Amino acid sequence: MKNIIIDTQTSPMGARGLVIKTSPNDNVAIVATPSGLKRGSIVLGTTVLVENIPMGHKVALQTLETGDEVRRYGQVIGYATRTIEKGSWVNEGNISLPEPPKLEDIKYVTPPAPNGGVSSLSLPVGLKEASFMGYRNADGSVGTKNVLAITTSVQCVAGITNFIENKIRKELLPLYPNVDDVVAFNHSYGCGIAIDAPGAIVPIRTIKNIAQNPNFGGEVMIIGLGCEKLRPERLLPDNDNQSSILYLQDERFEGFYEMVDGIMEMAETHLQKLNQRQRTQCSVADLVVGMQCGGSDAFSGLTGNPVSGFAADLIVKAGGTVFFSEVTEVRDAIHLLVPRAMDATVAQKLKDEMAWYDNYLYQGQADRSANTTPGNKGGGLSNIVEKALGSVAKSGTSPIVDVVSPGEKVSKKGLNFVATPASDFACGTLQLAAGMNMHVFITGRGTPYGLNMVPVIKVSSNSKLANRWHDLIDFDAGPVAFGEKTIEEMGWELFHLILEVASGTKKVATDKLGLYNDLVLFNPGPLT
Amino acid sequence: MKNIIIDTQTSPMGARGLVIKTSPNDNVAIVATPSGLKRGSIVLGTTVLVENIPMGHKVALQTLETGDEVRRYGQVIGYATRTIEKGSWVNEGNISLPEPPKLEDIKYVTPPAPNGGVSSLSLPVGLKEASFMGYRNADGSVGTKNVLAITTSVQCVAGITNFIENKIRKELLPLYPNVDDVVAFNHSYGCGIAIDAPGAIVPIRTIKNIAQNPNFGGEVMIIGLGCEKLRPERLLPDNDNQSSILYLQDERFEGFYEMVDGIMEMAETHLQKLNQRQRTQCSVADLVVGMQCGGSDAFSGLTGNPVSGFAADLIVKAGGTVFFSEVTEVRDAIHLLVPRAMDATVAQKLKDEMAWYDNYLYQGQADRSANTTPGNKGGGLSNIVEKALGSVAKSGTSPIVDVVSPGEKVSKKGLNFVATPASDFACGTLQLAAGMNMHVFITGRGTPYGLNMVPVIKVSSNSKLANRWHDLIDFDAGPVAFGEKTIEEMGWELFHLILEVASGTKKVATDKLGLYNDLVLFNPGPLT
Ligand SMILES: [Ca+2]
Ligand SMILES: [Ca+2]
Ligand SMILES: [Ca+2]
Ligand SMILES: [Ca+2]
Ligand SMILES: [Ca+2]
Repeated sequence: MKNIIIDTQTSPMGARGLVIKTSPNDNVAIVATPSGLKRGSIVLGTTVLVENIPMGHKVALQTLETGDEVRRYGQVIGYATRTIEKGSWVNEGNISLPEPPKLEDIKYVTPPAPNGGVSSLSLPVGLKEASFMGYRNADGSVGTKNVLAITTSVQCVAGITNFIENKIRKELLPLYPNVDDVVAFNHSYGCGIAIDAPGAIVPIRTIKNIAQNPNFGGEVMIIGLGCEKLRPERLLPDNDNQSSILYLQDERFEGFYEMVDGIMEMAETHLQKLNQRQRTQCSVADLVVGMQCGGSDAFSGLTGNPVSGFAADLIVKAGGTVFFSEVTEVRDAIHLLVPRAMDATVAQKLKDEMAWYDNYLYQGQADRSANTTPGNKGGGLSNIVEKALGSVAKSGTSPIVDVVSPGEKVSKKGLNFVATPASDFACGTLQLAAGMNMHVFITGRGTPYGLNMVPVIKVSSNSKLANRWHDLIDFDAGPVAFGEKTIEEMGWELFHLILEVASGTKKVATDKLGLYNDLVLFNPGPLT
Repeated sequence: MKNIIIDTQTSPMGARGLVIKTSPNDNVAIVATPSGLKRGSIVLGTTVLVENIPMGHKVALQTLETGDEVRRYGQVIGYATRTIEKGSWVNEGNISLPEPPKLEDIKYVTPPAPNGGVSSLSLPVGLKEASFMGYRNADGSVGTKNVLAITTSVQCVAGITNFIENKIRKELLPLYPNVDDVVAFNHSYGCGIAIDAPGAIVPIRTIKNIAQNPNFGGEVMIIGLGCEKLRPERLLPDNDNQSSILYLQDERFEGFYEMVDGIMEMAETHLQKLNQRQRTQCSVADLVVGMQCGGSDAFSGLTGNPVSGFAADLIVKAGGTVFFSEVTEVRDAIHLLVPRAMDATVAQKLKDEMAWYDNYLYQGQADRSANTTPGNKGGGLSNIVEKALGSVAKSGTSPIVDVVSPGEKVSKKGLNFVATPASDFACGTLQLAAGMNMHVFITGRGTPYGLNMVPVIKVSSNSKLANRWHDLIDFDAGPVAFGEKTIEEMGWELFHLILEVASGTKKVATDKLGLYNDLVLFNPGPLT
């Protein structure tokens, strides 16, 4: 992002002519002035706006003829569908959507420089000393919260698990002060589904792997009904000795309140163990950070995402794990990602995940262009190509060491690609299954996104949102757009915030307010 | 069900030889003794059990050779895959699954007798006088509960609507004593979805129509984010003048608590109107009853479903509306349903819905055989054919006056088929959209199924379950299995219970306990 050129020249008509051009050969720039720019404003010296352009939207820096490339981030984001005069507003109405990169044409050539695993001696001072206070688990993973999770094997038990969650919170948690919370993982799967369809493996391993998220300390407690298609036994960790399963249809339960007693008793055995967890000093290498964006605008790719990407690079350099996701938002930038794969196998896995999703969308008579929202467009993102180029900035610059399929767990330290839909809660749910103990969520339009299983640091791409949503945004990357701070500076700030949140010394907004969304299982298979 | 033959002869080995044979030419019967029947028990005079058979399971009444038809309900439910000796246990291990009826081979011939709409003068006394106390709405529909519903256009607002739901319940409901409850309709749709894919119409109209359920009194209140793909305006009722939409991204809201204030204010305007609703005397013709079964066993088709079907016939005779659903559970009985269609158009619609679902499953590399669960099989239902034949019994015997697609509203009085998956909450959600003001849910294995938008009467197919789940089951149809009561007697009892619950004078189990499941939107389209 060294090529960002910021021009704060004030236009003769009084508007502050602030625009951002990402790459030297771009022929559009982004209006950064919060109130937008008026007709007559002069930007980058020679471009006079011929119409009003809102914040986040693109101005043509030269006259484009029909069919000309429109370039942002040094990449083609579309072709002019009519003559676009210099100084005009460039948007989805006057540019066409390019074809996505053909997967078979992307060749994997040279392996990148060896993995960021720089020896700790050579690390910069701030990174070498960095640590956080986490809960170390028997399997070596580290929790950032101490949560009793109630896994469910089927959707019909949710009425009861909701009831139990409240009861445990009220009656048991006060007795186990080291336990932060109790969370019932309710979902829409388990019965009335085609359990043998090829797509079924995705939701099943997702539920199984979420139960093993580091924040739950290996205390797996499963509530089933008894007659469901998804057998609760399939959700147990491999080589497990301490998990427990309870069936509501168990004949020993005479009526509802006996079920409740049975579950409360089981919960206590797990709470006793969880209550003994203590935070100890952990290294950055113990972080597993899931990066996601949602409700993006044109600033996301300029501020929030690259700042998060810089923090991601720091974590990877220090030996930690970071992953990014959202297949439909990397699909159009895949030609930039394949060359970053660690080796040819990883490169192929990356392309395979794209191909799988292309086919999944095709089956539903859609394609990746269905990703962009009215909000994206309102925020200045004309199409999925422009959105994707900004979205991948949150991956930083590290080599990609591995790719995992939806619902799978990450097993390698370094930067991973975790294949998921871009749909926010489907993505977050799969990232929980992948094993994240920290979530960074970047937004431009604003979303109240919150999960109660891991801390969610909400990063805003612009200060207008951060100011308005002062109690919902944790970190404002907006100052980057105005040149007030650099990406590097803010990346370090975000890195330090991640450590504080991971240590439990700083609470994120959604934890303060108790705002939590339900998880959404990605089920590519049919209902029956 | 006049052909049920019950044999209570005690076997020489001391087991009470209770079996049920549904149709005279059946060659299997169902073990009805709660403890199952022991080897050596004699049933129906001449059949000596050659092995132990659990309750709900089938005994061969004659020796079957490989390829022989296995008949229950007078229909072929499979073919013997090896010699099955008289007195043996017939189950999924020794019978094969027949092909589903070919849709193109089912011809619609004679229209049935004119719709049950017998004139009120000719109705039996108990039906003629029957009425309930409901909330009549401006559009003529009638509510059985008085609920403030908060509709959401997108999944990310759920953290906030959950927060609001609690706050309204605590702070506002005490001020509006005529309002029963507040319910936020959270779902997993609205963004990150292919809004232009052909399948998208299903979840969209479902959300829109649920907001118009009679129990909400036409007070539609929608919470959106602002940048979602599903525009909240699409969810407004047609010709609407009193609905309200609130966007969390509205720039007038500075932070979370201002959003909360905005929503609370909007809620009050709706609560004021809802609070003025009063119950008035309504006729059976104002009932809209959705029938569903879940966690079925072999008794479901003998007790719970036909008893519910008898009650359905009473309601239809009195001019009311009843619908049944669950495409995968009628697919194998479709040859019995098409002849009941009111006219050729309805017959074709019925077949079209089957064909749509066949294709939907095919796309996901599954078929209707994916429907049966381990619990069904454990309960004695060997395959989907046997399950379907029992499942359709809940439709009673009335002609089918109309067929509506998933998410559509029912518009005709009488018996309707509302096409839905069999998956319990997907089905219930679509039945809410179809406009039900009363839900009858039949279960054999037991499920804690509960919805807070309409009362759910839970009917058990066997007394063993009803006794064990004494506080979760509302109505035990089990006595029918033992000849203690007739289907007719119990059908009338269920009918009267429906009226009491519709009047609010009797509370169902899940309302007493406050056990409610989340709705599940059926989305045949892909995520992005
Ligand atoms: Ca995104
Ligand atoms: Ca996302
Ligand atoms: Ca919930
Ligand atoms: Ca069913
Ligand atoms: Ca069902």
